[in-house]
Amino acid sequence: MSEKDDIYYMNIALQQAVIAEQNGEVPVGAALLLADGSLHVAHNAPISLSDASAHAEMRAIRAACQATGNYRLPGSTLYVTLEPCCMCAGAIVHARIERIVFAASDTKTGAVTSLYQLLNDKRLNHQVEISSGVLAAECSRLLSDFFAKRRKKKAS
Amino acid sequence: MSEKDDIYYMNIALQQAVIAEQNGEVPVGAALLLADGSLHVAHNAPISLSDASAHAEMRAIRAACQATGNYRLPGSTLYVTLEPCCMCAGAIVHARIERIVFAASDTKTGAVTSLYQLLNDKRLNHQVEISSGVLAAECSRLLSDFFAKRRKKKAS
Repeated sequence: MSEKDDIYYMNIALQQAVIAEQNGEVPVGAALLLADGSLHVAHNAPISLSDASAHAEMRAIRAACQATGNYRLPGSTLYVTLEPCCMCAGAIVHARIERIVFAASDTKTGAVTSLYQLLNDKRLNHQVEISSGVLAAECSRLLSDFFAKRRKKKAS
Repeated sequence: MSEKDDIYYMNIALQQAVIAEQNGEVPVGAALLLADGSLHVAHNAPISLSDASAHAEMRAIRAACQATGNYRLPGSTLYVTLEPCCMCAGAIVHARIERIVFAASDTKTGAVTSLYQLLNDKRLNHQVEISSGVLAAECSRLLSDFFAKRRKKKAS
């Protein structure tokens, strides 16, 4: 996958993050490209869906599993606008995703490079190729604007 | 919650693990007791449901969130026959589950006491009270019998 391709798919994930933001959810989006070339996108939606597990990555993985009738997604690449948390990183390992590309780092709950490094833990039965920083500024800005607005709203 | 109560609810989780086994899935079961006294049970089902995320704990959490219309489950206790993995431990934190009781330890992928200690990581924004060992022998035997049968089947 070329850098141009990575930017293309991350832009699709970013569009999903914008939808999350419009729904009042923390703006995170994901695009999951399967080995057969099909694409499954999702936005963060725990509040809207009343589902603690409804992060963008989880929803994209579940949609792709449903579409393919397979609980594993070998050869797939997951694009996500924010570094995945422990839950999502765990699901990425279970789904045997081959590669992950994330935009912004999450120093508070990130489980790929920040708090934990779950995707290259040799004790688990699958490791994932990791790229980061693609469209980081754009994805990060969306998040910081969201939290700034929320703080302002709470303070008023 | 008394020890007798813990055994009672773990037996319900164990019944769910038996259902998973009957379906050809790794025998793990969960029972999630909410603050309002309602109980949500689930068995492990990733293969049957074509869903990498369909561990018993995840399914119980999602069902409880759906039933209450809330993505958080404060004051709840999760009973599970096997130590949760990173994915499930992450979801437990997101759902603000108050207490977890697990039976058998999982030395290969356990993220509560074995490989990781995610539920008492002070860097995350919620910590969970942990009890373990309730009906450990029974829940463990179901798992080891399942894997022994599977190895025998593969070898024949």
